[in-house]
Amino acid sequence: MENHVATVELTPPYLVFVGDTTTPVFAKTGAGLVHWRRNSCLGQYRTTSDAIDLGLPDLSIAEAVAAGVRTMMVGVANVGGFYPETWIDAFFEATRAGLDIAAGMHSRLIGLPGLADAAAAAGTRLVDVRVPPNKLPIGTGRKRTGRRLLTVGTDCASGKKYTALAIEREMKARGFKSTFRATGQTGIMIAGSGIPIDAVVSDFLAGAAEMLSPDNEPDHWDVIEGQGAIYHPGYAGVTLGLLHGSQPDAIVLCHEAGRTTHEMWDDFPLPGIAECIDRYLLLGRTTSPNIRCVGISVNTSKLDPVQRARYLEDIEAKLHLSCVDPVASGVGPIVDLIEREF
Amino acid sequence: MENHVATVELTPPYLVFVGDTTTPVFAKTGAGLVHWRRNSCLGQYRTTSDAIDLGLPDLSIAEAVAAGVRTMMVGVANVGGFYPETWIDAFFEATRAGLDIAAGMHSRLIGLPGLADAAAAAGTRLVDVRVPPNKLPIGTGRKRTGRRLLTVGTDCASGKKYTALAIEREMKARGFKSTFRATGQTGIMIAGSGIPIDAVVSDFLAGAAEMLSPDNEPDHWDVIEGQGAIYHPGYAGVTLGLLHGSQPDAIVLCHEAGRTTHEMWDDFPLPGIAECIDRYLLLGRTTSPNIRCVGISVNTSKLDPVQRARYLEDIEAKLHLSCVDPVASGVGPIVDLIEREF
Repeated sequence: MENHVATVELTPPYLVFVGDTTTPVFAKTGAGLVHWRRNSCLGQYRTTSDAIDLGLPDLSIAEAVAAGVRTMMVGVANVGGFYPETWIDAFFEATRAGLDIAAGMHSRLIGLPGLADAAAAAGTRLVDVRVPPNKLPIGTGRKRTGRRLLTVGTDCASGKKYTALAIEREMKARGFKSTFRATGQTGIMIAGSGIPIDAVVSDFLAGAAEMLSPDNEPDHWDVIEGQGAIYHPGYAGVTLGLLHGSQPDAIVLCHEAGRTTHEMWDDFPLPGIAECIDRYLLLGRTTSPNIRCVGISVNTSKLDPVQRARYLEDIEAKLHLSCVDPVASGVGPIVDLIEREF
Repeated sequence: MENHVATVELTPPYLVFVGDTTTPVFAKTGAGLVHWRRNSCLGQYRTTSDAIDLGLPDLSIAEAVAAGVRTMMVGVANVGGFYPETWIDAFFEATRAGLDIAAGMHSRLIGLPGLADAAAAAGTRLVDVRVPPNKLPIGTGRKRTGRRLLTVGTDCASGKKYTALAIEREMKARGFKSTFRATGQTGIMIAGSGIPIDAVVSDFLAGAAEMLSPDNEPDHWDVIEGQGAIYHPGYAGVTLGLLHGSQPDAIVLCHEAGRTTHEMWDDFPLPGIAECIDRYLLLGRTTSPNIRCVGISVNTSKLDPVQRARYLEDIEAKLHLSCVDPVASGVGPIVDLIEREF
């Protein structure tokens, strides 16, 4: 899209930097990148042989350049968010070899002494994906062309990113025009572009969301990664700004089975699923009068298969909406409904 | 409050800078400062004799220093938000004379070539009140001690700041412990401290609001200046974050009589007053389960006295809540209710 310029933009293909990371939870971004964008990942870069293996070919930086890699993606986090010395050496080598570097850690690439100068000399970019673009507009509420789906949640970390990526993949598999729109650092690294919505200055929240999913063809679906949760005592403002700016035709509610309070905000109980959907629809109507819920996506990883089936069936029976676990069985029924009714 | 450190802080008394401004609308901040904090304003500084007269003694910078002034407050805005050359000369003179300077324009004081160095040499501060403090927390939702009132609106520019200041003044006149908490640049200049909430990074919206009205004595009222509006397509996210972080015991709804659509967002009709109150209460319960509305504050400046009386009476009869025009007749009935019921 011509007017879709004010997002973070990354250039594939990628070399996924793993460094010396041995703890799987710290390599979630790299694993997500391989899971959702395998074709963009030409190799991995590990500094020790016991580091996590993402299942990609091990490439030196020279080999990566020769293979056509354009960007080294830092696919790992680290305790405290700082960069160990061994990583920094590799960053300088990659920069001098002509690669962009992209990272989503709290600590900034451009804060590493000398690296920005090295990148300027090499004509490459250091992309801190947590840093939003500079020039964002105020939200206008103007109706945009094309279709939009936003994943929303009963809580943070309830599967909104995974669900959006799964819906985009399912839509593409059926020949829909569809684009995943990322709003958080991991999503942005997977999508190759996006806006880290919770890092945007509050005044521009809705405007950033509008810019993220610009006018498009009437039958094109933007599938937008939600953030926060509308009953959340710390983040609901972000959630509402994203909801208003996204102007979704459709929402999918994401939930983790068994969770009863907001994670790390234990004094705040989660709303019921029906109640939560109602709240999103009520507030979403401000900018999208015909907004509707097209399904429920549940992380049932703590249930056994029998419990899982019963859990999903119960919700379906009560709410008359498809209820899926996207990891266990995909999002097909949700896309069925979209295919049938839009 | 010991822990109330992460706000913008200004040091009175003040010299109010008017410069060469001849258009009253550009001197609204200065006029507000004189209206609400007359005792903190020792004089005004005008560079031309036809500039607006705020009713303060004209003081040279040397006279202001001799009188004990600590801060020069830039009480005027300018088309385009840039600083004219004649103003800058006065800023340097004030800085060298040992005064802090505070301003709320888009263009930053620290961006004026050489001024930051001059301030460093003089040991004075340049305070851009649109710039939020650096270290803001995430909202916790933890219940704080003391009472809180938040002014909310059917729209932006509906009298939220004026109403909050009027309620603080009325409370103080009756011997209440009460503090106005400012969330926008003009309010911050009037209060001498505050957080420009719409300039805060989204993630910290509720946390900033929590920090703005910290734990206090059980019978102390923070009267918090609202921002945006909950049905607003561009700003509702800010409004919700402020609502959640403020944890108000009480809200006062502000409205401009006769306005039917959101100002400058003409495609978005205003909600009805009762409907709008319900929405604020519904969403406010997330962090303040016993939140209630204690009155309605209407700007009736476009009505004649007969129309005004009828308008306010109609709303009172329908909603069984005190409905006042704070400019025409004060906020007494709202504070009456608070005095009776809290």
